[in-house]
Amino acid sequence: MSTNAPNQSNVLFAGVAKVLEAIRLDGATSQSDVVRATGLGRAAVAERIYQLAAAGLLETDGTVSQARGRPPRRLRLRASAGHLLVAALGASTAHVGITDLLGKELVSDAVPIAIGEGPEVVLGEVDALFTSLYQRCPVDPGLLWGIGIGVPGPVEFTTGRPVAPPIMPGWDGYPIREHFRERYGAPVWVDNDVNVLALGEWREKFARGHANVVFIKIGTGIGAGIISDGSLHRGAQGAAGDVGHIQVVNDPAVVCRCGNTGCLEAIASGFAIGRQAEAAARSGRSPLLASVLQRNELLTAADVADAASRGDPASTEMLQNAGRYIGTMLAGVVNLLNPSVIVIGGGVAGAGDVFLAAIRESVYRRSLPLATRHLLVTSSALGERGGVVGTAAMVLDELFSEPNLTDTLDRARNTTMSVPA
Amino acid sequence: MSTNAPNQSNVLFAGVAKVLEAIRLDGATSQSDVVRATGLGRAAVAERIYQLAAAGLLETDGTVSQARGRPPRRLRLRASAGHLLVAALGASTAHVGITDLLGKELVSDAVPIAIGEGPEVVLGEVDALFTSLYQRCPVDPGLLWGIGIGVPGPVEFTTGRPVAPPIMPGWDGYPIREHFRERYGAPVWVDNDVNVLALGEWREKFARGHANVVFIKIGTGIGAGIISDGSLHRGAQGAAGDVGHIQVVNDPAVVCRCGNTGCLEAIASGFAIGRQAEAAARSGRSPLLASVLQRNELLTAADVADAASRGDPASTEMLQNAGRYIGTMLAGVVNLLNPSVIVIGGGVAGAGDVFLAAIRESVYRRSLPLATRHLLVTSSALGERGGVVGTAAMVLDELFSEPNLTDTLDRARNTTMSVPA
Repeated sequence: MSTNAPNQSNVLFAGVAKVLEAIRLDGATSQSDVVRATGLGRAAVAERIYQLAAAGLLETDGTVSQARGRPPRRLRLRASAGHLLVAALGASTAHVGITDLLGKELVSDAVPIAIGEGPEVVLGEVDALFTSLYQRCPVDPGLLWGIGIGVPGPVEFTTGRPVAPPIMPGWDGYPIREHFRERYGAPVWVDNDVNVLALGEWREKFARGHANVVFIKIGTGIGAGIISDGSLHRGAQGAAGDVGHIQVVNDPAVVCRCGNTGCLEAIASGFAIGRQAEAAARSGRSPLLASVLQRNELLTAADVADAASRGDPASTEMLQNAGRYIGTMLAGVVNLLNPSVIVIGGGVAGAGDVFLAAIRESVYRRSLPLATRHLLVTSSALGERGGVVGTAAMVLDELFSEPNLTDTLDRARNTTMSVPA
Repeated sequence: MSTNAPNQSNVLFAGVAKVLEAIRLDGATSQSDVVRATGLGRAAVAERIYQLAAAGLLETDGTVSQARGRPPRRLRLRASAGHLLVAALGASTAHVGITDLLGKELVSDAVPIAIGEGPEVVLGEVDALFTSLYQRCPVDPGLLWGIGIGVPGPVEFTTGRPVAPPIMPGWDGYPIREHFRERYGAPVWVDNDVNVLALGEWREKFARGHANVVFIKIGTGIGAGIISDGSLHRGAQGAAGDVGHIQVVNDPAVVCRCGNTGCLEAIASGFAIGRQAEAAARSGRSPLLASVLQRNELLTAADVADAASRGDPASTEMLQNAGRYIGTMLAGVVNLLNPSVIVIGGGVAGAGDVFLAAIRESVYRRSLPLATRHLLVTSSALGERGGVVGTAAMVLDELFSEPNLTDTLDRARNTTMSVPA
């Protein structure tokens, strides 16, 4: 059986995806590195490197190796062989970008949207944004390898359709994948926004050495993304990570928008902190917040963080309280999943040390010692970049996964042969 | 490259493990079934089936197919080509057995042990039990393919060593794998007992169609096993699933053996129900339990279940309460992981309909609608058989996984060639 057999699925030897992963993600730059990282034999690795280089996916010191049996000396993914279009959609902001095949941002933008205007309007806006990105970035649209979309709701990952997303009226079951595939002729993957943030944070910072990571986004609402044994845990309906509605207090007065009482989101989200701040301003507990409220007509978690940093005791107490409830919920997550890293992100995560300290305190107090022995609780490293980086990471993981690798190598051969290296 | 190349790792084509899985687990009995189940082409499937049949792992109507290019008409794993030795160790009972290569029990036994006597004593007893199983079962000890051990504590799965197990004094870091590998010359896998139960329940009943399943064992303590996207989630230190110490009440009077307050285990475990029953007996709230206490000098959850089935209101209330707390914790698990099945097992799970109904009620009331839309909450189907079935499933999943398949096929060739088919 030769590598030129007509049925390409027959010539993909076991472990090609693993070899590519070693080069792409584990920093392997030589054949010996790949042997170490994959556990495959030298001859097997050479054969697989040849397959990848012949498709134009690997380069050595800038030149694609063509000589059979003589693998490149310094291996590197040919990041410029193609590019991705990505859009991370939030309730009110779209982060869009073009990245190379290593997920590096070539150009990006953040623009206001209103997700509630429905898929036709919003996806039309995304199309226009993609067009304007192409105008600002000198890549060949013919080298588009994949498209990634993040949305603020549950997604059935295999079909790319939102499933009963609570804050996305009109999007339930909408064929987002088909919308883009028809226009651009490239494969499309769609996922929940927090999943995408979790994946980005993991790939950028923790993928080497940590296979179990929980990312928690604390913004207007609260959600989690779970990396379980090295891949995203999406759940049966794509609804995993909905930690905002876990019960943390047994108080019927704490009413949540979901209809239940005592939910985490009703007491510790950005929205809840804003309402608590307004109550403190009106009751006279915080003269500082009262003066801000008079100016702005509403208060946000950012106002509370600001007031706390200026020494307002009521604001400090509010953040400590919210942090403790989040920490109690996370302690349950630690006992259940035994992750080695928890990353805190989202707008409220920037509320300062007092907030993170309160979260940490509760996590360590309420989790079992074995599960926290090597547990790291840290803030997001990517911040605003998370959406684009994470959505690109999702697309790359799919493009280079074993089930899709045959198609991707075909695309590589077709596109890289049509342009000069 | 031929299938007789000396370096076996080179000849394992991508997807051999998947082909084997389709036959072993998905009920594929023809080449067309395998094509459908794996998505591989016909030629690729034929090649892979040949590899497996040549190693003696597949049979057709009882005969191993040897003709190259002519795959067996009715495919079946040759379950009698080898056997496994398994032991599921609890705090006070060992379930041991010999199974075939489909995990079917050929012979089994349950005997009392005391896990606290330490590894040397207990593993010596397991050796003796294995010897007596061999005496009762006409298999050739030379055809032993693998050994599986379940233990009641966290395990580092890659090394097979217990990690700070709270109820296993003397076992911390003990080389259980080496103990058996040296004596029997077969590969050994060790895991936590609840993980093994979860795997067995999933493989037996839910593996087709459900990739996200949570098993909860309610016995003296409370623990969970998590199937995430089709494989066991073990966590960073093998400590995942320790749900007994998630906080469910904010009551400083509910003191747990772990040192914290308000833990699930302190209010809803078999141990806790027994203590509540004794209090109800002594206070006069339950004359029925008082009479049982007088006879037996202690009360168990089984006594409470029995009293409830005979109409004792205090006992019914205790089970309802415990069920509700377990359901509240499980609602958090549902929001976090979005499983499609929850299986309730362990001794207390047999406490009857009132208990399961209370669990269900809380789960459905406190979880988000999307996550419970297709959620099944059910009792364990395996019961006492779970330990042996689950431990065997763990060993088979490892033996037939891609990283180990080369070694397993070598073992198959060596052992099946040495005896008449």
